[in-house]
Amino acid sequence: MIHRVLAADLPSHVGRTVRLAGWLHRRRELKSVSFLVVRDRSGLAQVVLREPVPYPEETVLEITGTVVANPQAPGGAELAAEVRPRPGGPGRAPDRAPGGGPERSRTPAAGPAIEVLSEAVQAPPFDLYRPAVPAALPTVLDHAPAALRHPRLRAPFEIAAAGVAGFRAALDGLGFTETHTPKIVGTATESGANVFGLDYFGRPAFLAQSPQFYKQALVGVFERVYEVGPVFRAEPHDTARHLAQYTSLDAELGFVRDHRDVMAVLREALAGMHASAAGGAGAALSLLGIALPEVPEEIPAIHFADAQELISRHTGEDPRGEPDLAPAHERWLGAWALREHGSEFLFVTGYPMIKRPFYTHPDPERPEFSRSFDLLFRGLELVTGGQRLHRYADYLAALAARGEDPEAYTGYLAAFACGMPPHGGFAIGLERWTARLTGAANIRQATLFPRDLHRLSP
Amino acid sequence: MIHRVLAADLPSHVGRTVRLAGWLHRRRELKSVSFLVVRDRSGLAQVVLREPVPYPEETVLEITGTVVANPQAPGGAELAAEVRPRPGGPGRAPDRAPGGGPERSRTPAAGPAIEVLSEAVQAPPFDLYRPAVPAALPTVLDHAPAALRHPRLRAPFEIAAAGVAGFRAALDGLGFTETHTPKIVGTATESGANVFGLDYFGRPAFLAQSPQFYKQALVGVFERVYEVGPVFRAEPHDTARHLAQYTSLDAELGFVRDHRDVMAVLREALAGMHASAAGGAGAALSLLGIALPEVPEEIPAIHFADAQELISRHTGEDPRGEPDLAPAHERWLGAWALREHGSEFLFVTGYPMIKRPFYTHPDPERPEFSRSFDLLFRGLELVTGGQRLHRYADYLAALAARGEDPEAYTGYLAAFACGMPPHGGFAIGLERWTARLTGAANIRQATLFPRDLHRLSP
Repeated sequence: MIHRVLAADLPSHVGRTVRLAGWLHRRRELKSVSFLVVRDRSGLAQVVLREPVPYPEETVLEITGTVVANPQAPGGAELAAEVRPRPGGPGRAPDRAPGGGPERSRTPAAGPAIEVLSEAVQAPPFDLYRPAVPAALPTVLDHAPAALRHPRLRAPFEIAAAGVAGFRAALDGLGFTETHTPKIVGTATESGANVFGLDYFGRPAFLAQSPQFYKQALVGVFERVYEVGPVFRAEPHDTARHLAQYTSLDAELGFVRDHRDVMAVLREALAGMHASAAGGAGAALSLLGIALPEVPEEIPAIHFADAQELISRHTGEDPRGEPDLAPAHERWLGAWALREHGSEFLFVTGYPMIKRPFYTHPDPERPEFSRSFDLLFRGLELVTGGQRLHRYADYLAALAARGEDPEAYTGYLAAFACGMPPHGGFAIGLERWTARLTGAANIRQATLFPRDLHRLSP
Repeated sequence: MIHRVLAADLPSHVGRTVRLAGWLHRRRELKSVSFLVVRDRSGLAQVVLREPVPYPEETVLEITGTVVANPQAPGGAELAAEVRPRPGGPGRAPDRAPGGGPERSRTPAAGPAIEVLSEAVQAPPFDLYRPAVPAALPTVLDHAPAALRHPRLRAPFEIAAAGVAGFRAALDGLGFTETHTPKIVGTATESGANVFGLDYFGRPAFLAQSPQFYKQALVGVFERVYEVGPVFRAEPHDTARHLAQYTSLDAELGFVRDHRDVMAVLREALAGMHASAAGGAGAALSLLGIALPEVPEEIPAIHFADAQELISRHTGEDPRGEPDLAPAHERWLGAWALREHGSEFLFVTGYPMIKRPFYTHPDPERPEFSRSFDLLFRGLELVTGGQRLHRYADYLAALAARGEDPEAYTGYLAAFACGMPPHGGFAIGLERWTARLTGAANIRQATLFPRDLHRLSP
């Protein structure tokens, strides 16, 4: 059987007979010649042949022909195919299209030049071959299996896949162990709200909102762990940034001095994601016209209190006393970091304890502030993390201070009772990272099959 | 601050002052000397010092001292630490334990030799330092956060993590794209039974039993996809091999000739898993005394009908006419493959259509048999896979033949209506792979925090 060659590899096979396989991305029929664009996982290839091709777009084809140099074709080469070669006889050299390259070649007749592997019986919801996506988001989402075939709609997921690979590679290199933890849990402890309930063999259970408790417990086992997996939020808000399921890139590490060691690891993870995207999803980045932002060797950091000072000094507003940053102030800080530090990333550290979960480690010198951080990317929060409490007694005190019953946390607290090092971690929302990087206005553009308040299929 | 050195790296620091950090794995007090074993993520290290250490096991410590060669210590080196060095003065060389190595060294006093990062306030459910695990499985599972710290109980998860990394590396090298698909689905289509129901914003929904439909649809987008993620089965059976949640290593690829191309990719994925485990989890494999089985260049394969023939010829039984293999017959085939082919792996192909899901591709020459396969490992099923239908009309016919309403499959069928190549795939249960490889009698020994009929915590 003649070797299959991917579209992107055609240029290195000029003069040879090869087999191309993929989807009929587009066809144009001229009087005596057909131009096809065939799409496969590597990209697009042009095919010319001298007879009409009576199949609709998205039909799956195998085409045998000769690779011919053509400066006008993608990558500088195209496939010259024949239809119905004479049985037993030599193949006929295909006519060249006007403007085609100089080379001609005689192909041995090895069988029919075009084989239909499966004919499309339904048109996609919009023309997949148009460079821009000619459809609104709901149409794309309703018809995701077909719509995602559009190269621009597929591209973010190639970037996401490369990013995750870079996340893992960076953490593997730092001695982390990958883990897989339960997504069905018995208590909705981290936050009672926004949790999906479940019938678990007749008992109530919940979908995990994060692997927080498990990754902390596993610091006691592996010291450094990460998990890439789904988390679930029963978000009752229908916004451009909420999903009922998203992919969380979670990491947690022991034996830290404080949150700064966690920030240093996050910097490495992010740099790994960006390097991997640049290397593994270069075509997708080019297609979307994205220049990857540089992750500085040291990401600038500002304390929450200093950030509020700065904002009150330079804007007409005075946010001091507020326990959190307003979105407009995050944007202001993002612009400030770019101006002052040349960085699209900025750490804001030391958020007030009152806004952080009970396991957050306070700043011993200013106990109203925490050893936590947010990482802003272009003025928007991308990652949250920090140092956690690690002493059993501190957990009991923190729960008591919030009026919570430690009984509900027995399984969680067991890890701390048995000795846990100072530790901390962070969680990156994969879809959020991808959306921010690709400039997607809606996080659903960075989610293959989003789940939200209204959407449960496809 | 003095550099932290991992236990496994002590031998390359002989003569230097270093900081060791980890859990007090074991302590033995002699008259004038204490022997500590400290556990960190890399392994165990021996520490000697001349004063008593009044902390219980699992206390988290940082110990500063001098690395001393000692042929009796793990790796041939141990840490000689001092307690309460004289402020400002030079450190005292610790007394050598009887049988200790020849080297002595004077340590500069850089601060207290032992710092307690967090004291254990509760003993683990059993002695973590005993070489064999002195506890039954329910005790281990009930106290997983502490119990998994036992090196033998942790080891399977190091092997699992390395295996998954190898799975991904093999498929990345073959042009696969990693995906993340919904775990909450609107219809329990693949199998009505054993599915967890969910309240999804007031609507009924289900936890996905597999990413089957999504990975097939995504063949239309990426050609070759894989996903590592949780799948959920409401298994009402309380056995040693059933879990309510497990980690599925799913792959699916387009443009296959038939199931044999899928089997070839599975062989590469498995070889990648084994190579990665050998390289990345060597210490865990040694600890458990496991010699990794070789994955043959070509795994032997036998057709289901031929397997039944063979069994009826060589055993007293005649399974012909049965639509599936009995466990005893799988074991017999496993022994046969080892004897005849020197392989611990055996593909059984062509299972009867009647036992396979509706999307299974039949064998065109013997339509009662399918283009599916099971991979047996040591006589037990490890992987299931095969070629799927790819033409829209074939799906309609297959659903009609089973009396199913195609309306329920609208979202799924859309991918096939728009043109899909011949494709197939497989799913490896991670916990099953790990359990088989490590010889675990119960799959829960290969699951960090198992979920089953009775267990919803920790």
